[in-house]
Amino acid sequence: MKLGRLNHIGVATPSIEESISYYRDVMGAGRIRDPFEMEEQGVKVCFVDTPGENGTFGTQIELIEPLGEDSPIHGFLAKNPAGGQHHLCYEVEDIDEARSWFEGLGKRILGPTRIGAHGSPIFFLHPKDMMGQLTEIMETPKDDTHWSN
Amino acid sequence: MKLGRLNHIGVATPSIEESISYYRDVMGAGRIRDPFEMEEQGVKVCFVDTPGENGTFGTQIELIEPLGEDSPIHGFLAKNPAGGQHHLCYEVEDIDEARSWFEGLGKRILGPTRIGAHGSPIFFLHPKDMMGQLTEIMETPKDDTHWSN
Repeated sequence: MKLGRLNHIGVATPSIEESISYYRDVMGAGRIRDPFEMEEQGVKVCFVDTPGENGTFGTQIELIEPLGEDSPIHGFLAKNPAGGQHHLCYEVEDIDEARSWFEGLGKRILGPTRIGAHGSPIFFLHPKDMMGQLTEIMETPKDDTHWSN
Repeated sequence: MKLGRLNHIGVATPSIEESISYYRDVMGAGRIRDPFEMEEQGVKVCFVDTPGENGTFGTQIELIEPLGEDSPIHGFLAKNPAGGQHHLCYEVEDIDEARSWFEGLGKRILGPTRIGAHGSPIFFLHPKDMMGQLTEIMETPKDDTHWSN
């Protein structure tokens, strides 16, 4: 497998509204996308853009707030009430090839390949098999406008 | 303040040697720099490159292993024995301006501005004031070769 772009860093937060103020008013973020709900995943998400080199598109921050009582984010926030870094997401060229690669290495994959927040297929790998990092693998989105919303 | 590039993600590890194998053989990283020691900070570090868009330089992974008995990384690894995400580092144009900005907002700055692993001035901000994220602020390195080693 060939390591692709670090698409985003997932950051859990008790309040996306508060996080938006933080990234805008404290960190000076230039562009923050509209938040949206992903009911099946039990999360509300919001992407903050960071600039890449030479005017390119940099790694995003994905803000994640729990949605509903069964949200997987409640456990994380119970341990980290202020929120914090939750996962890393890397791009790959071909999601099926990447899945076979990690399966062949005996890495635990968390659930089926599904469509993620960027409209592109993704899966997650168990942090205990990934040196302590909850890792998301995403097929590079075909639309290079980066799904504006 | 204007948010700059996400320069790197700091990832604590019990073993840089093991992490290098992981990023090379599992994740398929194309370029991993030579590890080096930062005695004053009590850490050994190693940078893993990730690709940016259109052949640009992406956000790096900074592997951090404790160096010496008083290393600040021991506490993190006691809680997270496998290692994991430790901090986020953003670039700014002017480090003194950024320091004044955060001071003016009442954010706790951890120690003096000092020269970081990239040879550029940096400081750290307390995670409790930064929505749970230990945050490093770095003046954009002047040398655009990204300090090869």
